[in-house]
Amino acid sequence: MGLLKQRILDEGKVLPGNILKVGSFLNHQIDTELVFEMGKEIVRVFGHKNITRVLTVESSGIPIAFMAAHFLKVPMVFAKKSKSKNISEDVYSVEVPSFTHKNVNTVIVSKNYITKDDNVLLVDDFLANGCALLGLNELVKQAGATTAGAAVAIEKGFQDGGKKVREAGIDLHSLAIIARMDDEHVYFAD
Amino acid sequence: MGLLKQRILDEGKVLPGNILKVGSFLNHQIDTELVFEMGKEIVRVFGHKNITRVLTVESSGIPIAFMAAHFLKVPMVFAKKSKSKNISEDVYSVEVPSFTHKNVNTVIVSKNYITKDDNVLLVDDFLANGCALLGLNELVKQAGATTAGAAVAIEKGFQDGGKKVREAGIDLHSLAIIARMDDEHVYFAD
Repeated sequence: MGLLKQRILDEGKVLPGNILKVGSFLNHQIDTELVFEMGKEIVRVFGHKNITRVLTVESSGIPIAFMAAHFLKVPMVFAKKSKSKNISEDVYSVEVPSFTHKNVNTVIVSKNYITKDDNVLLVDDFLANGCALLGLNELVKQAGATTAGAAVAIEKGFQDGGKKVREAGIDLHSLAIIARMDDEHVYFAD
Repeated sequence: MGLLKQRILDEGKVLPGNILKVGSFLNHQIDTELVFEMGKEIVRVFGHKNITRVLTVESSGIPIAFMAAHFLKVPMVFAKKSKSKNISEDVYSVEVPSFTHKNVNTVIVSKNYITKDDNVLLVDDFLANGCALLGLNELVKQAGATTAGAAVAIEKGFQDGGKKVREAGIDLHSLAIIARMDDEHVYFAD
């Protein structure tokens, strides 16, 4: 998706440890117009798949998942990273290691909001080691539902997450795939 | 806002400890159409105030803040609840107690995304004891910026947050104000 790639080139900052900062438009400050276009692109790719729910995990994927769900005309659900008093005990849960934060989160979703009849599109902002998407896929499996596919904004193609997600049989579409990064530049896969 | 109040009456569940569950449409599963209408209503109230940025804190306020920012045609910023490796040291920060989770979070926002020239609209899903909004207001003060006002979806009028926020001189607008709740019913203030 050219619009996203151009913003990454214009505003992305590469930090040590293969961290790409896109906080000026994607995951700290949000350009809502860009996210609208990302939602439209996700629906262009997945719109024919009879998706019934969009699932992400808090927090950075929420705006993208929200717009994808809006254009698909289905509910958006965000899984939560720890047990809240507001969530009933009646949840699906999975342990998900975080690449960014170097910790492990328990990710939960209410059993009310994914059912066995659902055909779920997974959405996230970044795909690095794949743990978040594979964790969401596990929640879908626990519900007896089907994963229709996964849409991510930025795939770090030089890490193994994309390979793992595709090998899990998930129809993955990344709006921008980064082949490599150095201190000066971001190089896209295509 | 009638549409929101009706959904609270139809789907809200009151739990012990004055907890109102609205996870079926507002803060776990999201009805994007409803949130679009909430964004429009927020802009109807605050659209004349020359707002330059919308600020919320992750996670539940993000969809509402996103739509308010979209219709105001300004960037949305979400403050984060703990230090991420993706955030530079160059942040404003404040300690915010959580009513729901009974803990204290360090809430941070990059100095890049609130500047002294900003006129900021604060947005959140719930207003109970006011700590989240007052924390966001403190971040705005640290930046030397101005708080244009605060918009929340649901104010628990029987707690003192609304009073504290208004006494802090913040122009507060709540889309639904709950006067009281019991096991069976939610009663609105008007």
